[in-house]
Amino acid sequence: MDLKKTENLINSSVRNLKEYHLQPNPYKIKLNQNESPYDWPEEIKQEFAQFCANRPWNRYPDFIPQNLKEALASFHGITPDSVIAGNGSNEMLLVLLLSLTDNNSTVVVCQPTFTVYQLLTNGMGRNLVTANLKSDLSYDLKGIQKALSENPKALCILCSPNNPTGSTLSEQELRTILADHQGMLILDQAYVEFGGFNALSLLKEYPNLIITRTFSKAFSGAGLRFGYMIGAPEILKHINKIKLPYNINFFSEKLVRMMLAKKEVIAERVEKIKEQKDRIISFLKTLPLENLYPSSANFMLFRTTRKEELLSFLKEREILLRDVSSYPMLQNCLRVNVGTEEENDILIQALSQFYSVKI
Amino acid sequence: MDLKKTENLINSSVRNLKEYHLQPNPYKIKLNQNESPYDWPEEIKQEFAQFCANRPWNRYPDFIPQNLKEALASFHGITPDSVIAGNGSNEMLLVLLLSLTDNNSTVVVCQPTFTVYQLLTNGMGRNLVTANLKSDLSYDLKGIQKALSENPKALCILCSPNNPTGSTLSEQELRTILADHQGMLILDQAYVEFGGFNALSLLKEYPNLIITRTFSKAFSGAGLRFGYMIGAPEILKHINKIKLPYNINFFSEKLVRMMLAKKEVIAERVEKIKEQKDRIISFLKTLPLENLYPSSANFMLFRTTRKEELLSFLKEREILLRDVSSYPMLQNCLRVNVGTEEENDILIQALSQFYSVKI
Repeated sequence: MDLKKTENLINSSVRNLKEYHLQPNPYKIKLNQNESPYDWPEEIKQEFAQFCANRPWNRYPDFIPQNLKEALASFHGITPDSVIAGNGSNEMLLVLLLSLTDNNSTVVVCQPTFTVYQLLTNGMGRNLVTANLKSDLSYDLKGIQKALSENPKALCILCSPNNPTGSTLSEQELRTILADHQGMLILDQAYVEFGGFNALSLLKEYPNLIITRTFSKAFSGAGLRFGYMIGAPEILKHINKIKLPYNINFFSEKLVRMMLAKKEVIAERVEKIKEQKDRIISFLKTLPLENLYPSSANFMLFRTTRKEELLSFLKEREILLRDVSSYPMLQNCLRVNVGTEEENDILIQALSQFYSVKI
Repeated sequence: MDLKKTENLINSSVRNLKEYHLQPNPYKIKLNQNESPYDWPEEIKQEFAQFCANRPWNRYPDFIPQNLKEALASFHGITPDSVIAGNGSNEMLLVLLLSLTDNNSTVVVCQPTFTVYQLLTNGMGRNLVTANLKSDLSYDLKGIQKALSENPKALCILCSPNNPTGSTLSEQELRTILADHQGMLILDQAYVEFGGFNALSLLKEYPNLIITRTFSKAFSGAGLRFGYMIGAPEILKHINKIKLPYNINFFSEKLVRMMLAKKEVIAERVEKIKEQKDRIISFLKTLPLENLYPSSANFMLFRTTRKEELLSFLKEREILLRDVSSYPMLQNCLRVNVGTEEENDILIQALSQFYSVKI
């Protein structure tokens, strides 16, 4: 068979997706992926290295990572069957779309938001309906309610705090949405350690709510690619059937348990990041920016008409920010996450120079 | 919303899947998962431990694991854009089903075979058509051709050497299938290092062929959960669009590269396993078994009417075999993989005692 004919065998929903490339840039200061700026303490790394040397690499992990599920459950005060673990919340989203939608399903998301929701919805050929944030980039409750009432059984995917805007949904807003919605709601809380309402307490009341969490942000574990979902055991029981068996390798399984045992390390870092964030925000307020948006996450979003110029200026200094200007509503917007104190010093220094504003 | 109504929101294809549990059994000798019996040498484990201690855990892996793709490509003498990497060939199968099928697609598999093909096909609501192996468990070329001619655009998934039977497709058989087939063919070659025709050489001629490979068997890396696919770059370019970004964590990325650099370790172990396999087969031939099937993999399949009795006898001695008797055509069949020489001694000893046959 020839190549052209073979290409036509590819599912058109996938074929029509745009190819997406992210060129790695050299950097000294990396503030473009909302990572934690802090690596894990040396003693934990040594302990893990020891484990790697001892654990037989030729053996499969357990069929169900029970120890891992128990550790996550105990961390959150829930039962192990309320948890499914995966390689990043991305894998969880894929498994959720496989379980909760079919060819006739509609998925409702709120623009602008994390692009993977749309990528998977479009790639799987589901019908995508988008509500918009308000012009101040806060959530528009009425807009969401309208989209859901027009698509009553839709799978709704919301992100709070939202990436890349930092906007959040309050407890009252979530309750209002859940009270009416006749479909499932996935709430991505990748950034919830930094602020915003933690919706875990709603799970008991709403079996149609599933929360996804990650170790890539507050847990300083982006290199691990670990995420998980929390929901009603009776619902997760079904979702588990389509999750790939043995999906977590033994490195992640062990590391996550080690990290969970160091609650106080995480808590302390989250505090540091919040302090540094307040400091950066105070400074950003002194700059002649078009907009600076309130954020409950570990990053800030601002709009500047000098975006291109600023990006090159920072690139020369090997300071990486994320250009999010191609998102809907985010023309000329940049996202910058909190770094270490020293990194933030350099960022502030560079910005003050660029905008000719005294620190 | 109440729980019952929420359960009804789950895609019926997923809801109808059976829950699958695998109880871990205590063991001294584990011959039930076709793992390599050999762990990696101490020096490599130490080198990796060192890497883990040095690499920042808080940073994402690269968007495209280019070093990894280059290492795999150079290992196979192909180009890096001919490769997509994932967490086990399971992930690759899922990505392939997402890319190569839609709601109206048919998937053709040959029974009995690896259960994940059916799990994903059914769970995604695709139409499953099964051809059967012959009664001697060798591939039935005519049966496959018939199924494919009746379903001309079907996605065909074949496994060679086949799990759990060890059967293979020859070059001529594969060419015959590919010459006629108007759809895609996924060939799972998880066991090809141990025997059977390596179909890599066919990729240039057939852009509708995609091969999946794994590090869980010959590469002694089951704990890693690493697998990959090889195919025409023009086709993989599309498949890449639906693969989850950042799917490989940095541990796997590094380990795979370290393992690929130790070709000679792999080759030497494969030779040892083949020698030991010949030895076990010679012995199995002396037992009063109903059938012993030819296998090109690192495991043997046999049929014994005393299956239950034998399993408990071995379980008491903490020797684990895989009961595959619930697969189609495999009533009373057990699968046992090759262990280390010492493990095989104990297996042979136990079997000779059970069947009262002198070694």
